[in-house]
Amino acid sequence: MNIINGGVTAPEGFFATGVSCGLKKDGKKDLAIVCSEDSAAVAGVFTTNKVKGHSLQLTIDHIKSGYANAIVINSGNANACVGEQGYRDALEIATLTSGLLDCTPQDILVASTGVIGKRLDMDAIRPAIESLVSGMAPDGGHDAMEAIMTTDTIPKEIAIELELQDTKVVIGGMAKGSGMIHPNMATMIGIITTDANISRKLLDKALKEVVRTTFNRVSVDGDTSVCDMVVIFANGMAENAGIINEGEDYETFVSGLEYVCSHLAKLIARDGEGATKLIDVVVEGAGSPDDAYKAACAIAKSPLVKTAVFGSDANWGRIFTAVGYSGAEFDPNNVDIYIGDVLVCKGGSAADFDEALAKEAMDRSEVKLLVRLNKGVYSDHVMTCDLTYDYVKINSSYRS
Amino acid sequence: MNIINGGVTAPEGFFATGVSCGLKKDGKKDLAIVCSEDSAAVAGVFTTNKVKGHSLQLTIDHIKSGYANAIVINSGNANACVGEQGYRDALEIATLTSGLLDCTPQDILVASTGVIGKRLDMDAIRPAIESLVSGMAPDGGHDAMEAIMTTDTIPKEIAIELELQDTKVVIGGMAKGSGMIHPNMATMIGIITTDANISRKLLDKALKEVVRTTFNRVSVDGDTSVCDMVVIFANGMAENAGIINEGEDYETFVSGLEYVCSHLAKLIARDGEGATKLIDVVVEGAGSPDDAYKAACAIAKSPLVKTAVFGSDANWGRIFTAVGYSGAEFDPNNVDIYIGDVLVCKGGSAADFDEALAKEAMDRSEVKLLVRLNKGVYSDHVMTCDLTYDYVKINSSYRS
Repeated sequence: MNIINGGVTAPEGFFATGVSCGLKKDGKKDLAIVCSEDSAAVAGVFTTNKVKGHSLQLTIDHIKSGYANAIVINSGNANACVGEQGYRDALEIATLTSGLLDCTPQDILVASTGVIGKRLDMDAIRPAIESLVSGMAPDGGHDAMEAIMTTDTIPKEIAIELELQDTKVVIGGMAKGSGMIHPNMATMIGIITTDANISRKLLDKALKEVVRTTFNRVSVDGDTSVCDMVVIFANGMAENAGIINEGEDYETFVSGLEYVCSHLAKLIARDGEGATKLIDVVVEGAGSPDDAYKAACAIAKSPLVKTAVFGSDANWGRIFTAVGYSGAEFDPNNVDIYIGDVLVCKGGSAADFDEALAKEAMDRSEVKLLVRLNKGVYSDHVMTCDLTYDYVKINSSYRS
Repeated sequence: MNIINGGVTAPEGFFATGVSCGLKKDGKKDLAIVCSEDSAAVAGVFTTNKVKGHSLQLTIDHIKSGYANAIVINSGNANACVGEQGYRDALEIATLTSGLLDCTPQDILVASTGVIGKRLDMDAIRPAIESLVSGMAPDGGHDAMEAIMTTDTIPKEIAIELELQDTKVVIGGMAKGSGMIHPNMATMIGIITTDANISRKLLDKALKEVVRTTFNRVSVDGDTSVCDMVVIFANGMAENAGIINEGEDYETFVSGLEYVCSHLAKLIARDGEGATKLIDVVVEGAGSPDDAYKAACAIAKSPLVKTAVFGSDANWGRIFTAVGYSGAEFDPNNVDIYIGDVLVCKGGSAADFDEALAKEAMDRSEVKLLVRLNKGVYSDHVMTCDLTYDYVKINSSYRS
């Protein structure tokens, strides 16, 4: 498996671009398209929030057929909670795009991210769709990615190539989102492209499997924003022998997809709003997978833990406290806690540790917090970021 | 019912004081006692965290008898997660105190709040206990309250008097704690005193009933720190006809107790670390009490909502998003949201509202957020505070 350039346009037969149509006040790019030359098999994972954005709702409807040609994504406006007009606006975007691409509106997916409760400025979007489609290029992945950023500060894209029975297959991806205080509340959009030839059923299975261990370990399931989605397009143009059962090719494809999604998920966690550090919370020795997940989540969500990491303060009592209210089963007298490699709590009590070493471990750009429950064999991890002054700054005036 | 002065020493037969013994680096008071002249009936509500502080553990043991004479509280150190020595230290505090008060160690309760994982400095505490006991005064409630403060910035005490069949009964209270990001993670200690003559069983019932609707609407149950406790002492010295059944006197007593606890809980919410505003999140029209509670909690915990309130940004989409992932049952198309009196979302869609009026409602020191689910008849509320730069400042360097 090799990492290559090109993002979502790295696989054969994909075109993309991004333009500025005026949704963002600062004139930055805000409208993107990712398009497959041929109709592609598609699969998606969507927010579990009971409130669902209108563009996301349209995409859920259109993806049911299992095939699509392109996705149009706007930033600067979530197209959510504006009434029935929101769905009609998303449908108009799909209709205008399909007219130019010579397919049906049902072959177009739509995604939106930004402020909730404001109608899309269709007067800005309508004329931009033509330049969007005419501007698509086989090296336009990066432009598309720039157009889906909102509070993102670092680009999030990757592509890899892998071999399936001597045939080269490429998977590309881009994402937007940031691992905020509740990691899960960030609007997260991920677009994955591949030229692999794979059955719709297995594409769907692979995506769900991989999202669970990657994006959902940043943007925690069941606790998501109204526009979250991850969509994958597979156009088959690599002409590998079709992946139609869960054999070796499927496994290789899944591990490639996992690499792509894991890379993007980590970038999301690192790019938390105002974040200075990536935090990887690892829980080992849990009595059940659920307990491992609950404990890791509670620590990763704790604002007290996240501010302590910001200040490089080895205040492990806050980690222990979070485990205590997580709902996970454990014996408090058997818990060991590490900050980096430094054992700070042994058997539920303060360990005699070197504060300077612990501070050093917390001064890194990637901080590992490890909790051993010493009860069973299950482990899990959740990635998040520290909580800083800039988080407050960004989020106290997001709309203005 | 009248509000009177005196805090925990307002009721007949209570003495208290606070001294500095050196646990706090800045030389502020850090050791308090509240003592009843006669043995008092006692009841308590304790953290549900699986990790429990050693002082709290001792108090759980000692309160089982149903009677106690005094409680000693230290700030600056949580006496938690230090191994078996922690319980022995708490017991030594109880023993030393009981020796001076001519009762048994089992008649003394102990509470601690502060940093986790450091042994109590008993060399500092031991000699201070004598001056603590000798300094007790019938007007020492305020001194005791000062000695239990940690990051608290405002005093939290109150006393009321009420009439039970022409007999005057007094209830006093003090608390420490602050309604932080996860309101529930703050260490919360509440000490209530009363000279009412009430059976232990009804005292226990009254406390549990009242804590549920007051302190637990700031410090949410099931999600608490390792040292949280609310304890009530009732010494019977008002000589009212004993409250031994749930008649009129019981109801009057409960409403008085509710007033005291509600006042203290509100002060805790308002005094959130770095907070500039109190936020009262109200959910109405839920299909069940549990749904009302879930929705209110999700909003109150959302850092995005709390930063928006800090910035007086009427970003109601964040409120709606929190309701959406709260787990409450509702129809997104029937939800109305108010900021103060301003209807910002009607039937799940943006209402046409005056931004200036909404901003005005958010510029107040007390901001009400109201969500009507329009599904059933149940309502609930949770109090919290905004999330500010100062919260990050305070919590990124708490130990140092």
